[in-house]
Amino acid sequence: MSSDTEIYKKQNFGNTIGMGKKPALLIVDFVNGFNDENAFGGGNIPQAIKITQSLLEFARNQKLPIAHTRVVFADDGSDLNLMYKKVPSLKTLTENSKESQIVPELTPNNGEIIVRKRVPSAFFGTDLAPQLTLLGVDTIMITGCTTSGCVRASALDAMCWGFIPIVITDGCGDRAIGPHEANLFDLGQKYVDLMTASEAMEKIRNK
Amino acid sequence: MSSDTEIYKKQNFGNTIGMGKKPALLIVDFVNGFNDENAFGGGNIPQAIKITQSLLEFARNQKLPIAHTRVVFADDGSDLNLMYKKVPSLKTLTENSKESQIVPELTPNNGEIIVRKRVPSAFFGTDLAPQLTLLGVDTIMITGCTTSGCVRASALDAMCWGFIPIVITDGCGDRAIGPHEANLFDLGQKYVDLMTASEAMEKIRNK
Amino acid sequence: MSSDTEIYKKQNFGNTIGMGKKPALLIVDFVNGFNDENAFGGGNIPQAIKITQSLLEFARNQKLPIAHTRVVFADDGSDLNLMYKKVPSLKTLTENSKESQIVPELTPNNGEIIVRKRVPSAFFGTDLAPQLTLLGVDTIMITGCTTSGCVRASALDAMCWGFIPIVITDGCGDRAIGPHEANLFDLGQKYVDLMTASEAMEKIRNK
Amino acid sequence: MSSDTEIYKKQNFGNTIGMGKKPALLIVDFVNGFNDENAFGGGNIPQAIKITQSLLEFARNQKLPIAHTRVVFADDGSDLNLMYKKVPSLKTLTENSKESQIVPELTPNNGEIIVRKRVPSAFFGTDLAPQLTLLGVDTIMITGCTTSGCVRASALDAMCWGFIPIVITDGCGDRAIGPHEANLFDLGQKYVDLMTASEAMEKIRNK
Repeated sequence: MSSDTEIYKKQNFGNTIGMGKKPALLIVDFVNGFNDENAFGGGNIPQAIKITQSLLEFARNQKLPIAHTRVVFADDGSDLNLMYKKVPSLKTLTENSKESQIVPELTPNNGEIIVRKRVPSAFFGTDLAPQLTLLGVDTIMITGCTTSGCVRASALDAMCWGFIPIVITDGCGDRAIGPHEANLFDLGQKYVDLMTASEAMEKIRNK
Repeated sequence: MSSDTEIYKKQNFGNTIGMGKKPALLIVDFVNGFNDENAFGGGNIPQAIKITQSLLEFARNQKLPIAHTRVVFADDGSDLNLMYKKVPSLKTLTENSKESQIVPELTPNNGEIIVRKRVPSAFFGTDLAPQLTLLGVDTIMITGCTTSGCVRASALDAMCWGFIPIVITDGCGDRAIGPHEANLFDLGQKYVDLMTASEAMEKIRNK
Repeated sequence: MSSDTEIYKKQNFGNTIGMGKKPALLIVDFVNGFNDENAFGGGNIPQAIKITQSLLEFARNQKLPIAHTRVVFADDGSDLNLMYKKVPSLKTLTENSKESQIVPELTPNNGEIIVRKRVPSAFFGTDLAPQLTLLGVDTIMITGCTTSGCVRASALDAMCWGFIPIVITDGCGDRAIGPHEANLFDLGQKYVDLMTASEAMEKIRNK
Repeated sequence: MSSDTEIYKKQNFGNTIGMGKKPALLIVDFVNGFNDENAFGGGNIPQAIKITQSLLEFARNQKLPIAHTRVVFADDGSDLNLMYKKVPSLKTLTENSKESQIVPELTPNNGEIIVRKRVPSAFFGTDLAPQLTLLGVDTIMITGCTTSGCVRASALDAMCWGFIPIVITDGCGDRAIGPHEANLFDLGQKYVDLMTASEAMEKIRNK
């Protein structure tokens, strides 16, 4: 991708926004079904969950606002949509199915926001943006899966909604590495700042 | 990407939605600045404009609803946003700047919708979705640039808003080919049907 | 209000839109708590539920798309918002509380959409608009409570989202009659067509 | 309305939210056409403009973020919508028509946000919410017209988007006094804090 990078540089893409004053942590779709290669998982998702575990602990210690997302369709299928037509097995993700529960390592605490959604972005058809505005959040650190799907869509919408988006590169995973990397490239060039979990924690500690 | 494709197949991604009953044509950001390698253009964008020209003619003959998008920031910079921080030269795209005008080959006719936007998606912060709902549209064929930016974001949002999204592969272009292809892969696996302009016209003619 | 009406007439407000081709029925917040004078109910809400019962039966016979709304806050209060600050007792409306269950006369059938919301409009922070677009709906008949609250907000947003809004005057109720009437006036002058349930059924039968 | 007020009191409506830390001023639709009794104006709109003038001056001195709205339809009518069907003369409000220009007393300064919209709410189909989030705003003081139309819709959406909404009672006007008062009642009971311009300025000065 070296020649790809060149034109982005020439056209002055890829500038840095910087960490804001009040960051939140958004963990996208780390549910059992996306941590299972036989459902929607695979690739580097397990490692990303591990990294997210330590970032979640850090966020709790720092009293940062925390939000988790799950994909949840109605038991009777009354809200199945076009994404379901592309990926029919998504309909197994219902309120009480094992697949749609957040992985045990990242079980939400009381008071943490849980967003139920039916499309990639955590912000679409949900009240996540108002909740975070109400909390005075100006920056959203994003981990989760998949990088090429719900993470990208959520990071893009975070930017659109006026929150500084920081994608935690090692806290995001995907079923396949090609799309993982291609999407981090797009995100970093055009929409978000990319940081590792350590870099983000360092920046917050030093504020 | 052969091993990438394998896991998507195994997990039953990439199904087809099919053409609806009332398609519209959405042309994303084919403005002078994105057709100029020294601004935001390059790659296969010129060819995609050519293909779009014939699809636009077809859509006009068929009396399909047509919408065009432009990126337009205020002259005084009062609405500059986070995307501008990643890509500062976007601020040159103002109402009357040459760079923000739709390319001459695709000049909108009277009665065609023109959407002014400041983020990637044609649907974000605009009333495009209501306008198309009002017109009874159920399907949106999308061409434009860049595939890895505003086309992808608009196609994803089209799906989220309940419109069958069809991305016209040869009617979309990007400043670099790697991201163009990576994004067509993501889109086709998860969110949209991919067709060439000829295939789409064929399907509409045969309804 | 006779002089009020005069200036609206002079300025040519209050025109009629007409019934579209594919109507849906939206029933707003007819839950136990809003049918209880000691919670959020009172006024003419019980009569409006009765009228809605017959309209719901009609809609089921006609196979019209049907959606119900409930106000639902998280058990742990993690999503309490500004409306809660104005009306603190709303926090009793949780997933399993008796007050937030749809009244027995209007229990949803399988396949009918159930929208959980935390603000007045059925469309805000929900995917109701996309669901109805996906079903090809062009018109929304609205009943529910309260007229001056969630009905008005939902009717206005229906219009904004490009759906012809028809407010069923005798299918809407409010805890107090002054606001009920004042809001029907505003709605009819500016945003929606007003019909009784009988008039709406007649129009649909005669299509 | 004394008996109406009673039930709201009994059900514990009408609590106060309070002024936040970073207020903005939103001036809704004070354009020539809405200050002309022969177009869309009348009633107490002229007085409300006068009050808004002093609040605008105050906001500028205090360096508060300021946003103005206008209703603007395309010259070719390509974006006429359902509100236009209820109120056809709205189509005269185009980019350069005299009627759609902000009244001279309130001419925006460079750097103040100008929102073009086609429905009542300043937030619907616009990027006002993200712009204010980006500026760190947590409170929106709202003046404008009409109280029963675009002010109410904008104030409600401000609340929905997570901004503390303060409606400036003497800075809002309507073509008829009945709806003006009925809507201030609804707003104060359910969605916003009501203050006069003097009260709001006092609160900000004393922070």
